[in-house]
Amino acid sequence: MKSAYTAVQLLTKKRDGAALEPAEIRWLIDAFTQGVVTDYQMSAFAMAVLLRGMTEHETAALTLAMRDSGRRAHLRSARGPKLDKHSTGGVGDKVSICLAPLVAACGARVPMISGRGLGHTGGTLDKLEAIPGFSVNQSLTRFERLVKNYGFALIGQTRDLAPADRKLYALRDVTATVESIPLITASILSKKLAEDLDGLVLDVKVGRGAFMKTLPEARALARSIVKVGTAAGVKVSALLTRMDAPLGRTVGNALETAEAFEVLLGGGADDLVECTLALGAEMLCLGGLAKTPTQARRMLEAAIASGRAADMLEDLIAAQGGDRRVVREPDRLPRAPHRVVVTAPRSGRVQDLDAMAIAQVALRLGAGRTRADQQIDPRVGIVLLKKPGNAVRKGEALAQLHTTTAQAARRELPNVLAAYRLGTAAPKLAPLVIERIAR
Amino acid sequence: MKSAYTAVQLLTKKRDGAALEPAEIRWLIDAFTQGVVTDYQMSAFAMAVLLRGMTEHETAALTLAMRDSGRRAHLRSARGPKLDKHSTGGVGDKVSICLAPLVAACGARVPMISGRGLGHTGGTLDKLEAIPGFSVNQSLTRFERLVKNYGFALIGQTRDLAPADRKLYALRDVTATVESIPLITASILSKKLAEDLDGLVLDVKVGRGAFMKTLPEARALARSIVKVGTAAGVKVSALLTRMDAPLGRTVGNALETAEAFEVLLGGGADDLVECTLALGAEMLCLGGLAKTPTQARRMLEAAIASGRAADMLEDLIAAQGGDRRVVREPDRLPRAPHRVVVTAPRSGRVQDLDAMAIAQVALRLGAGRTRADQQIDPRVGIVLLKKPGNAVRKGEALAQLHTTTAQAARRELPNVLAAYRLGTAAPKLAPLVIERIAR
Repeated sequence: MKSAYTAVQLLTKKRDGAALEPAEIRWLIDAFTQGVVTDYQMSAFAMAVLLRGMTEHETAALTLAMRDSGRRAHLRSARGPKLDKHSTGGVGDKVSICLAPLVAACGARVPMISGRGLGHTGGTLDKLEAIPGFSVNQSLTRFERLVKNYGFALIGQTRDLAPADRKLYALRDVTATVESIPLITASILSKKLAEDLDGLVLDVKVGRGAFMKTLPEARALARSIVKVGTAAGVKVSALLTRMDAPLGRTVGNALETAEAFEVLLGGGADDLVECTLALGAEMLCLGGLAKTPTQARRMLEAAIASGRAADMLEDLIAAQGGDRRVVREPDRLPRAPHRVVVTAPRSGRVQDLDAMAIAQVALRLGAGRTRADQQIDPRVGIVLLKKPGNAVRKGEALAQLHTTTAQAARRELPNVLAAYRLGTAAPKLAPLVIERIAR
Repeated sequence: MKSAYTAVQLLTKKRDGAALEPAEIRWLIDAFTQGVVTDYQMSAFAMAVLLRGMTEHETAALTLAMRDSGRRAHLRSARGPKLDKHSTGGVGDKVSICLAPLVAACGARVPMISGRGLGHTGGTLDKLEAIPGFSVNQSLTRFERLVKNYGFALIGQTRDLAPADRKLYALRDVTATVESIPLITASILSKKLAEDLDGLVLDVKVGRGAFMKTLPEARALARSIVKVGTAAGVKVSALLTRMDAPLGRTVGNALETAEAFEVLLGGGADDLVECTLALGAEMLCLGGLAKTPTQARRMLEAAIASGRAADMLEDLIAAQGGDRRVVREPDRLPRAPHRVVVTAPRSGRVQDLDAMAIAQVALRLGAGRTRADQQIDPRVGIVLLKKPGNAVRKGEALAQLHTTTAQAARRELPNVLAAYRLGTAAPKLAPLVIERIAR
């Protein structure tokens, strides 16, 4: 390692508000990856970045240095544009599971590397692992082959992909340095750029149940990722989507996986279908597979109607060791032993449904984790039979709890009820997609 | 350990600019001392403090929590006010060695715990260790007994004294978080308050050769320490003293120790004597041993004239295992084998003498260290025969280099010369004590 710099020198520069040069950032990230720069130096650096910020130029350099800290996928032999989606995470967000096969069915290659859940949002990997036998742990070589042969793959971050990001993220999580737009940008993009993409669509969730609570924050993150990703040579656009109520009608791993399958078979809740089609259309347009969003939506709808996307998912599930029958026979997914219905205390309309309150219930039932080493239970969760705007009669079922014990169901029943706000007026429902941000 | 808080929670609060409660700060420091809060969390905290600041209230809580992280000296049985001095460090600053016995000779108890040098300033401990046999490593119990029996003691920080400060300082040094007034305040005061003091006088050095380069910085630090120390129940005042040229006529460990002895025997350079008397008078007034600075100076001068302070230092040196004869026979201190004279290239007056340039020469000769694990050579250094304001004839000696090799002397000779600025005018010499800051 060239010792052109010292950690203290670069820390001082950032601390005092100056912009670091790309070579300085690259040295820092390489030295951190190799353990020359220590964890306590890097956490102080992260805090300095959080408080002092980074220019777009610095953020781009950080992203590329982190991308280059490990191996990169090589998908050059794969036919069709290589497209991916990244969501900043929301309650009930199972879109990846139906979106990847759908977009692949329309001619793209979707090399999708997902994460686990931490905190209130469940991760795509946790949802996929509800499928008996399915393995999200695949080597980078195997991943390349899956994408080539099946048009897409659904795996977890491999050890050799952007290791600097994995190390830095673990530190940020315990040093109050998560909420930094340059650091979030570099974390998301470094992994995605290592996938060898042509185009990336971001789903930036905004609202009560999202990491970004306000529109200005969400816009700032979307703009940062679009700019830095574009500068790195990838087509990037972002949809800002509402995350006040859970997406779709399920929260909990096996329940959500089953709901994603439903979308591929022509069903699914309106908001979930809308989110999937909006993101899919954006991907197809970005990849040049469709000229207009309308054309793109027709292609996606055709891939659902023909059953082709569902077939492709079945093949991939089998290729990754899973039971392919789950797609059309979701009862083969693990089911919780206790199911208790939450009924409406009076007639009216659902005015509001608090995503965060539902997420907390799911977490307590065992569907999520607050520490990386916690086990999750794939079976438990909540089925939201009524969502905002729906009419309900007194005594009718609002939701259903899936739990391991009757006691847990009894304990959480009032909490699910409290997440609902009932009233008489027809609530004004804002559209799911708030705005689109592109270069 | 009570887990009322988490590190992330407190880091977030400080990061976002809020003030921490005393109980929160105490939890953080206790958890850090016990290893529950990790180094990488603490370094991120230090960076947040550096960039967000701390209120006086927070700084006081941090100081007390760090003081209480280990044992405290118990000097209650010691007669006379317990007084100490702390210097922020300057080139040629050997004041502690003559000041402690002087003030003790006037009726105070001086429980002086000193540090080692790092960077350009030599530490008092390194200077004391030039005395054959002298040990600065004494247990806290032994220290208490020395102060009781001899009126003062000159030791290094024991392992059980403010361990949180030792841990935190080691981190700050490598994470660019040294330059924070709240953190410096807590670091200095936590150790001093653990000495069970009645009064503390600060010597805040200002100028080219000091940590604080400008008067506003020095004032801010002095005010912070005076306020926080006073709030903790100790009388604290500060003198801001000039540190552009080295203090006294020697730089280098054994040379400086000998010069400190000289002061006790009625000699010593004017600025060194002035600095010692000014700080000593401040201490005696603070401790109620003198009513006015004039009276205090007379007491100090009497302790020199009578030889009492020198006698007391001899006794203490013997008690700490050293050769007591060095005080009156300084040739018993280790001497460098090579001594080379730097002569004036022309006649004139010394306009200026760059303390930092001289410190760099001393460092290269082996008198200082840049890493904590480096060995220093007690013998080497520079004797400054001419100082700013002095007249010099062409060919007359300006300075003398004490080195291990003839080669080192030859190499550094031009550097010593370059530190001098000669001219014809009589330079305006600012007074040593710039201002006094007290509650």
